[in-house]
Amino acid sequence: MASDVDETHRLIGSDKVEGTAVYGADGQKIGSIQRVMIDKLSGRVSYAVLSFGGFLGIGDDHYPLPWPSLKYNTELGGYQILIPIEKLKDGPKFAAGAEWDWSAARERGLGDYYGTPAIA
Amino acid sequence: MASDVDETHRLIGSDKVEGTAVYGADGQKIGSIQRVMIDKLSGRVSYAVLSFGGFLGIGDDHYPLPWPSLKYNTELGGYQILIPIEKLKDGPKFAAGAEWDWSAARERGLGDYYGTPAIA
Repeated sequence: MASDVDETHRLIGSDKVEGTAVYGADGQKIGSIQRVMIDKLSGRVSYAVLSFGGFLGIGDDHYPLPWPSLKYNTELGGYQILIPIEKLKDGPKFAAGAEWDWSAARERGLGDYYGTPAIA
Repeated sequence: MASDVDETHRLIGSDKVEGTAVYGADGQKIGSIQRVMIDKLSGRVSYAVLSFGGFLGIGDDHYPLPWPSLKYNTELGGYQILIPIEKLKDGPKFAAGAEWDWSAARERGLGDYYGTPAIA
C-alpha cells in the first residue's frame, strides 16, 4: 500500500483511517479507530468506532463516538478527543464482535450523551 | 469480524465498504471498491476508488469516482453505477500503488468528467 495514494492534505483513505491513533486532550495516545460507520445514502461518516484496548484500563470493548467529536490533529498525526476520559469510560460501548443496535433512537442517545448533533 | 456490527440498514462500516462489489447499469458485476477517500474535516466521503481488475478488460488500474455517482442497490447488495462502461474506460485513472494528485483542480476535473458536483 503506497501511502502516497491513501492520504493527502485533506483526504484520507478509509483503509488509512482504520488503525489511526486517537489522542486525549493532553496529547496522550488513548486508543485507535477500528472503523468508521458511513451512511450509505449520504456518504457521510456518522460514527467512529474506537478501541481503547490496553489504554484507560479498558479491555477490547468498542466505543462508538459521533464523528464531530474527533478532530484531526496534524501535529499528532491522529485524531484528538477533547471529551474527558471519565466521560468516555462511562459512555455507550459494546463488546468486540458483539451486535450493536445502530437504530435512529440509539444514535440520538449517543449524540445526546456526547453533546453532538445526531447526523445520520 | 462480525457482520452484525459493520452493517445496518443505513450505516456500513468502512472495512465493509472496501471490497464491496460494483455493478453496471445492466446489473452485471464490473468491479469492486478498493477504498473510499474521506474528507478529514467534514467527514464526508468524496471519492470511491474502484478497481476493475479482471473486468472490462482493464488491468489493475484504479478509477476514482465521485461518491454521488454510486448508488447503493439493496437487491444487488452492492453499489451500482449508471455511467456507461465506455465513459468509465476513458475516465481518469491511476496505476495501483501509483501517486494520484487529489488536488482541488483535479477533483473539479473529475466532477466535470462525470457530471457530478465537486464535493471536497
